[in-house]
Amino acid sequence: MIIDPLKDLPTLADIEDAAERIKGVTFHTPLLRSDALDAVVGAPVWIKPEMLQRTGSFKMRGAWNRVSRIPEADRAKGVVAFSSGNHAQGVAESARLLGMKSTIVMPADAPAAKIESTKRRGATVRLYDRIKESREAIAAEIAAESGATTVRPFDDAWIMAGQGTAGLEAARDAAAMDVRFGSLICNASGGGLLAGFAVAFEALSPATEVYVSEPEGHDDLIRSLASMKIVSNAPGTRSIADALMSPEPGVLPFEIHKRRVKGGFTASNDQLLDAMSFAFHHLKLVAEPGGANSLAVLLNNRKHFAERGPILIVLSGGNVDADMFSKAIARTPPV
Amino acid sequence: MIIDPLKDLPTLADIEDAAERIKGVTFHTPLLRSDALDAVVGAPVWIKPEMLQRTGSFKMRGAWNRVSRIPEADRAKGVVAFSSGNHAQGVAESARLLGMKSTIVMPADAPAAKIESTKRRGATVRLYDRIKESREAIAAEIAAESGATTVRPFDDAWIMAGQGTAGLEAARDAAAMDVRFGSLICNASGGGLLAGFAVAFEALSPATEVYVSEPEGHDDLIRSLASMKIVSNAPGTRSIADALMSPEPGVLPFEIHKRRVKGGFTASNDQLLDAMSFAFHHLKLVAEPGGANSLAVLLNNRKHFAERGPILIVLSGGNVDADMFSKAIARTPPV
Repeated sequence: MIIDPLKDLPTLADIEDAAERIKGVTFHTPLLRSDALDAVVGAPVWIKPEMLQRTGSFKMRGAWNRVSRIPEADRAKGVVAFSSGNHAQGVAESARLLGMKSTIVMPADAPAAKIESTKRRGATVRLYDRIKESREAIAAEIAAESGATTVRPFDDAWIMAGQGTAGLEAARDAAAMDVRFGSLICNASGGGLLAGFAVAFEALSPATEVYVSEPEGHDDLIRSLASMKIVSNAPGTRSIADALMSPEPGVLPFEIHKRRVKGGFTASNDQLLDAMSFAFHHLKLVAEPGGANSLAVLLNNRKHFAERGPILIVLSGGNVDADMFSKAIARTPPV
Repeated sequence: MIIDPLKDLPTLADIEDAAERIKGVTFHTPLLRSDALDAVVGAPVWIKPEMLQRTGSFKMRGAWNRVSRIPEADRAKGVVAFSSGNHAQGVAESARLLGMKSTIVMPADAPAAKIESTKRRGATVRLYDRIKESREAIAAEIAAESGATTVRPFDDAWIMAGQGTAGLEAARDAAAMDVRFGSLICNASGGGLLAGFAVAFEALSPATEVYVSEPEGHDDLIRSLASMKIVSNAPGTRSIADALMSPEPGVLPFEIHKRRVKGGFTASNDQLLDAMSFAFHHLKLVAEPGGANSLAVLLNNRKHFAERGPILIVLSGGNVDADMFSKAIARTPPV
């Protein structure tokens, strides 16, 4: 089926198509278990560890599904994207593999690890001031000048379908083990990953309740769902979850969120650091602040989720600087 | 087949039997990939991440395979073991699951994380002085007084067969993906895990060359293989690889090593810290110093292994204190 990715919503068929396309380029991440996590939560928990994905986050899935569809004739003009750092790496890596130029507009205060990794993958990085400048405007200008294809972070059906391959893998792997999730918790910024999971689970595990996890002060999606229309975060609100600072849900993802997301919870900076410490001490996984949001939400709302039976949490990324990580793991993990 | 675990060597059938026994108690750990690692090594590398195993190391596999075979009549008397911390947690967790008492003899300078985790699993921990006291003598005394079953760390066919389930999983998973490893690198202290891998690969992937990775100054197995008889490390030699400080190879494991281990390499403390940093920055995995030994050996002998085609490295554990880990990840990872 030919879809218009800037207008249409992805279906399960689009996710299955994306799964074929990304095979051999991205990794099929496993579902992991932890007896320590099961014990503190009081229900069996399954972890989808997207920090183990190529580029250290799920973003490679959507980026490859989008960038690899750019027609041959347009490839010489390159791609442009804006991102706090994970989409940046996914787009840069996809472009590199296709022999294309990439320009990524990144906030000057992004983690050094993300900026370095994006450059290492061959991208030209244009830093901007998160408060004073508009990343959309800068990217639009670069696109207009160069003819580069803009790769949006979430408002694109191909991007959402690509991110949804993580949900497809998790749903199929769970079915093969005869596991039925009562609930799943997924981090959201613009909400592309959450939308992808929601579409995959709507088809393959419709009884699973879908929850969103957001950083405190960036609960734009939770508030948008409450009013059934898109609302923004207060400008200038900060969180250590640098990956989850989109000002509002994406227009296309929100159409799916409205249909499928049951509710949501936020986590404070302290709760994010505690969750990172838990992941270090017990899961032996490196989670970035935003990547650990779902775990933080689970650890702080145990009863709500345990009552619903087996739980799936999506740890969306692990691109964190050593100093932030050291600060987190010095904390005693929650018991 | 009835085997005498203190005299016989494990076979593939014993490993397959162990795999059935540990199912549902331990986790089937995945084979992971990293484009960053492939790029620096110049050959495809597959990672068996045993820090993701229950208790944070492979040791749970052998411990459960041994402890769960203790006859009902002997269970009330408990188990005793000596260990620097990973076998300790495996034995303590196995005993806990079976409702048995456990006493673990641990060095007073073991990482706090290992001592705490062993206690949390219900064990009575008896600390000893690594230089002045004999852990074997202390454990023997406890066993004589209490009638507890001694769970040896490696000189036991059931322990080796249990550890070998990691090799069985890796060999089968690789075969399912049509991957053939030219070489595998596995850490060794007493050498139970290495022996288990060697037996599994002898049967399922005989063309794979098996290499041992050891810490500098603790190359007892490499030197034993060179002289074809067991030799010890100089007393008092120290390494940050606390998990790999056995004074010499186990008698039973060495019978298998002699038959199947092609060679070995050591890594210095600096190289271990660098490998831990690489695992943090690029693999997003928490490796303890001893757990990262195979990666350190690979990073420092790239040409040797790349020439042999696809490589399997076994990262054996992730039980490391936050301060040691922070020290490691502050280092720029090898390029």
